[in-house]
Amino acid sequence: MPFPTPPPILTGMNGLQFRKSVQAIKPYVPGKSIEEVARELGVNDIIKMASNENPFGCPVTAEQLAPHIQRGSYYPNVATTPLYEKVAELHGVSEKQLVFGNGSDEILMMLGQVFLSSDTHAIFSQHTFSEYEFVCRVMGASFTSVPTRDYTYDLQAILYAIREETRVIFLANPNNPTGLLISRQTLDAFLSVVPDWVAVVLDEAYAEFVTSPDFASGISLLDKYPNVIVTRTFSKLYGLAAFRIGYAVTAEETVTQLHKVRQPFNVNQIAAMAAVHALDNAAFIQRTLENNEMGKRYLYSILEKLGLEYIPTEANFICVQLPFSGKLAFENLLKLGIIVRNLASFELPNAIRITIGLTAQNERLGTALKSLLSRG
Amino acid sequence: MPFPTPPPILTGMNGLQFRKSVQAIKPYVPGKSIEEVARELGVNDIIKMASNENPFGCPVTAEQLAPHIQRGSYYPNVATTPLYEKVAELHGVSEKQLVFGNGSDEILMMLGQVFLSSDTHAIFSQHTFSEYEFVCRVMGASFTSVPTRDYTYDLQAILYAIREETRVIFLANPNNPTGLLISRQTLDAFLSVVPDWVAVVLDEAYAEFVTSPDFASGISLLDKYPNVIVTRTFSKLYGLAAFRIGYAVTAEETVTQLHKVRQPFNVNQIAAMAAVHALDNAAFIQRTLENNEMGKRYLYSILEKLGLEYIPTEANFICVQLPFSGKLAFENLLKLGIIVRNLASFELPNAIRITIGLTAQNERLGTALKSLLSRG
Repeated sequence: MPFPTPPPILTGMNGLQFRKSVQAIKPYVPGKSIEEVARELGVNDIIKMASNENPFGCPVTAEQLAPHIQRGSYYPNVATTPLYEKVAELHGVSEKQLVFGNGSDEILMMLGQVFLSSDTHAIFSQHTFSEYEFVCRVMGASFTSVPTRDYTYDLQAILYAIREETRVIFLANPNNPTGLLISRQTLDAFLSVVPDWVAVVLDEAYAEFVTSPDFASGISLLDKYPNVIVTRTFSKLYGLAAFRIGYAVTAEETVTQLHKVRQPFNVNQIAAMAAVHALDNAAFIQRTLENNEMGKRYLYSILEKLGLEYIPTEANFICVQLPFSGKLAFENLLKLGIIVRNLASFELPNAIRITIGLTAQNERLGTALKSLLSRG
Repeated sequence: MPFPTPPPILTGMNGLQFRKSVQAIKPYVPGKSIEEVARELGVNDIIKMASNENPFGCPVTAEQLAPHIQRGSYYPNVATTPLYEKVAELHGVSEKQLVFGNGSDEILMMLGQVFLSSDTHAIFSQHTFSEYEFVCRVMGASFTSVPTRDYTYDLQAILYAIREETRVIFLANPNNPTGLLISRQTLDAFLSVVPDWVAVVLDEAYAEFVTSPDFASGISLLDKYPNVIVTRTFSKLYGLAAFRIGYAVTAEETVTQLHKVRQPFNVNQIAAMAAVHALDNAAFIQRTLENNEMGKRYLYSILEKLGLEYIPTEANFICVQLPFSGKLAFENLLKLGIIVRNLASFELPNAIRITIGLTAQNERLGTALKSLLSRG
């Protein structure tokens, strides 16, 4: 059955017409994996201190997940697991204030989908997680990246960047890759003057690692500021990065909108059940937090001995300033079997980000940095 | 530190400004899960023939996935698994022609992200998978849902719906929920007259179940029509719906664009490895296909005996016409412990979709339908 040719409506287009705002996106370059480095170097003893993963590994066993793998042919449904209940209890919020995602990355994209389009605008800071700009580009929204002051968010300048089309302000707290905190008092003062029609997304991927008494999670401010949206992840403290699960905590009205753009089967069932088991593993959580404090002190002392500047961190990584490029440090540490994060893509060309590791890993990094500097 | 209030730029807006096209989305209502029905009815012996899942269950064991669960604290990276290589080999394409997603649902959204925005248009058919309309709404694109003729795609009308702003035509082949095929000859004739600047997305979620010799996968037509994009899933034949993994096969140029909108960690590592193991399980695949043929014949004979009309299927489900509403059938079959799909949301109010099950399940369904009709 040949079709009659449709009327020739167009001649000017050659080949597929991709969206312009998408073509401008630079593909994200993730940190190198241990497998890749091992293959390239031909060695086995590689440690990864690049992506802020949990150095104790995964807190959940195959045995715990076996019943859910066995039922793996069924479509997932987080509502059939205890996850809503457990997370609601953890934060003292209603289950109706929660939305789960395929990592908090997906939650951030869903926020873009409910708020951003080509006629709107978003604001984030320089030296921060690249996902916010990515979300803006995918949704075709314009955006302002506000310069930092001494690596710190310039919240005053962020306020002044708000315009009629602004729909979202993205703030990581603590910030990635600096580890810096917006204090409770500053956050409250900031939120009190942000117009209530602008959503303030507080990306709290590292909040569980904060030790400063000056910190307030946005969750504690939701009653006062319903335009606040908090995102959290199971990829860091809870050691489940491979599984992909994160969530938003916010006002019910916003949750209703997020559910509209949520793909019905966005969260895999194995991840949902892994998250349930991870929340129950109090010993793992405590061990992780204690190790992070100990490792932080140790790395501070090493960095000070080596005369390297660093930003005191409230997260599970340290941003280290170098007398040479982060690229050079990355490449030379790689040769010693240690993967760190070169911060050039964060507009910090002379810095690396080091995930706080286990004692032996931190010591090996200390030795490697020392040899690197003595050669420098 | 109190902030000076920013200049009062706006007064007309009250509260968060959600995108209008999103507010219009009706939340997807997934098929009921066995757990939900068991809870509601207080019984245990529930069978689900509603979501076209594999009746043999999951082909992958917890033991096989154990090493990957143990490494579950690391961010996922499909490129470190043999999945690209295996799928490329399966289809005789280059690895550069593949993109993996969090289910083919995510692939469809990524296609929306690279092609659709508020100034563009997409086309799909009436009586088809709801995801295509969902993608259009999330991206704010306009769309035309072209009426079917006798439940069949009206490809001529689809051609005439193409306009300057059209960027994508979505076609499920075989179609869900009808199980109908676009034949090789018809597809070729259709593609030969679609302008090369319009992407034709062939959603082949059920392609592995096709037995008609008249079928051609879009993959075999990629060289001839580089504007074709094929999507596939591991949720049906491969029994991995809970894990979330699907993929696109298309021209390298389109893959490059899809990688730009792809979240870097969109596919969980457990799913990627489960897919590798599922591809290796030839016995499971063969058993599934044989059972589907046998179950199809059996259900046809039952439906004919009961005098029920059905659409001969090329998939793992059957669309059955009823002398009463699909809602009524759904509710009454539910009371007998059988979950089917009411097709009201597909604009087929007097029809249900039945997943072809195991022999005992098909028999139980046959008995239930008989009792339903005799009571009717």
